[in-house]
Amino acid sequence: MKHIYILGTTGTIGIQALDVIRQHKDKFKVVGLSLGHTKENQHLSIIREFSPLIVHLREGLDLEKYQKLFPNIQFFYGDSGLIEFVKYDKKGYVLNGISGSSGLLPTIEAIKTGKDILLANKETLVMGGSLINALVKKHNVELIPIDSEHSAILGCLRGESLNEVESITITASGGSFRDLTREELKQVTLTDALNHPNWDMGPKITIDSATMMNKGLEVIEAHYLFNLPYDKIHTTLHKESIVHGMVTFKDGSVKAVLSNPDMRMPILYALAYPNHLDLAIKPLEFNNLDLSFRLLDLERFPLLKYAYIVGRKAGLYPTVYNAANEACVELFISKKITFLDIERIVIEMVEGFDQDIKNPTLEQIIQTDKDIKRKVYNYV
Amino acid sequence: MKHIYILGTTGTIGIQALDVIRQHKDKFKVVGLSLGHTKENQHLSIIREFSPLIVHLREGLDLEKYQKLFPNIQFFYGDSGLIEFVKYDKKGYVLNGISGSSGLLPTIEAIKTGKDILLANKETLVMGGSLINALVKKHNVELIPIDSEHSAILGCLRGESLNEVESITITASGGSFRDLTREELKQVTLTDALNHPNWDMGPKITIDSATMMNKGLEVIEAHYLFNLPYDKIHTTLHKESIVHGMVTFKDGSVKAVLSNPDMRMPILYALAYPNHLDLAIKPLEFNNLDLSFRLLDLERFPLLKYAYIVGRKAGLYPTVYNAANEACVELFISKKITFLDIERIVIEMVEGFDQDIKNPTLEQIIQTDKDIKRKVYNYV
Repeated sequence: MKHIYILGTTGTIGIQALDVIRQHKDKFKVVGLSLGHTKENQHLSIIREFSPLIVHLREGLDLEKYQKLFPNIQFFYGDSGLIEFVKYDKKGYVLNGISGSSGLLPTIEAIKTGKDILLANKETLVMGGSLINALVKKHNVELIPIDSEHSAILGCLRGESLNEVESITITASGGSFRDLTREELKQVTLTDALNHPNWDMGPKITIDSATMMNKGLEVIEAHYLFNLPYDKIHTTLHKESIVHGMVTFKDGSVKAVLSNPDMRMPILYALAYPNHLDLAIKPLEFNNLDLSFRLLDLERFPLLKYAYIVGRKAGLYPTVYNAANEACVELFISKKITFLDIERIVIEMVEGFDQDIKNPTLEQIIQTDKDIKRKVYNYV
Repeated sequence: MKHIYILGTTGTIGIQALDVIRQHKDKFKVVGLSLGHTKENQHLSIIREFSPLIVHLREGLDLEKYQKLFPNIQFFYGDSGLIEFVKYDKKGYVLNGISGSSGLLPTIEAIKTGKDILLANKETLVMGGSLINALVKKHNVELIPIDSEHSAILGCLRGESLNEVESITITASGGSFRDLTREELKQVTLTDALNHPNWDMGPKITIDSATMMNKGLEVIEAHYLFNLPYDKIHTTLHKESIVHGMVTFKDGSVKAVLSNPDMRMPILYALAYPNHLDLAIKPLEFNNLDLSFRLLDLERFPLLKYAYIVGRKAGLYPTVYNAANEACVELFISKKITFLDIERIVIEMVEGFDQDIKNPTLEQIIQTDKDIKRKVYNYV
């Protein structure tokens, strides 16, 4: 029985994780739930169904009310409460489904108390890759990705040696605007951007797919997860989202992991790793299937090009890249900037940054994240 | 350093195996070579290059001449010599690249003397699957497939548990006549049949690809190699021959092995298993690639349907199916029967067979192979 803590319970990843756990209650016990949004009815039914030992509530939720309803549950509250929550003294797996840079700190504290990490929060590794890898090693915990691309590559590497790997390839659906020219991008709206052709995901990641920022974050994430140099991390435009990731070996063979696009698959794989438990997703049939792979043009998608630039510069540059984008996406969602402004501002922030610190501390990372976001907000 | 014995040295598989070994002389030492054809010049240069300890010569070759030229090499001669050759008292890997039913006996004798088997000879498992699996277990040797499809599935299973496998899928290029209707097949010639669209292989296997007999043999081979029931062994028409084999797991994920079609890849994988050594084959690029998968119609390809029928009947039925086909292909190559006669006669031989022996002995298998072949030759 694996003990599970879920961060971002009512987000896209959290809800699907609960669905997967529901099908394997003999294998997974939900010990802790962090509840992030204010949908009280949903919270109450989730708590009743999974009977966690501890619950974290975001600021704004009515702590006293929850405490009265569930007197046997230990509650944690607010930002500092989240850190206490992940420090809870029972070992287990922290499934981090938080979106954005606020996912970094809880991951770090969870690792420090010896918990294994199931990571859907890309920003953890983009911002703190070197720090995280050192902590994972020091505390001897597992760090398993949930992102479908990294999950696929982890699957491809199962039973294989990293030193026999020639390269890895991350597939990209191309997002909402994959068939538009850069000229046509000038006209696109928020509604257009939120209409992803293949995946049903949260708004931030859907917009990041359209700008190819999401793939950029994944390239950096892959660098830290699999300990590979950037010239061994390739991407390809694969519109069908059936092949999620591939590994090319030195003998010219390529291993790939495929499935119909359904995040429950990589979530369950992370939970059950390295096992494949039963999961009732739409099976992939080979009776009438076409798969295409095309060059992912770095000029068409400059934010992907910049992932390699900031990744190779390392230090605080990936944090700048990510923070600028987070602020821009927020401004785009509140309709204060246009779609093309996102990449323009991110690139300006990266190009304007000049702190060449090789091994930044957590404090420097968090400060840079704040500084860049403020800079973007002030800029508009 | 692995010690290698090659059966069928100057066949398509043997020659490519030598090419692969040539690139990794620090890893593989050719101990024995069985020379099957009468190309003396080729033989002499191969013997000089690889300096084996022992050499087997087929009947018809000039044994005395070879002995004079290579006084330090121990020679074996003819059919009985081949059995003594594989019994040679040095452990190692026997790479069986013999085509057809004559590959069975040397495999069995090699296993009995504790040698590991690298198997390109499908007939070994089609005819003697149960016997072979029992011997492999008894003598604790490895049996590694060289066929690209089975090699791919072996790769997909690396690090995985068979009890988490939902099904395996063997891909088929469709062979020379994949785009013809059954009506159009009435007119095809030997030259047409030998013109395979993707693979450069020997004549027998190229004709077996056109009749889909080859895929039928592979289905039965997979049953014994991976210990899976026939309803878990699927096929798909994949014209590009890029994806060689796939495994579907219980969580809905599918693992696949891909490469440009080049037999040196599965040969090296078998030799180096489970490692991936350097191999300079044309790398697979994902900048402009299309892959298609279509239903492999059992009515269009009745010999594939019959693979499942004889496979499930087991006993001597796969031997009948294989022997009838071997004789038919010989008759087709000597232009004594038409292309469509092949499947008609094979099906007649299977339908006319009625010895329901569950666990046939090696002698019964070999006798049935002879009987059915004689029956086919007399029939025409």
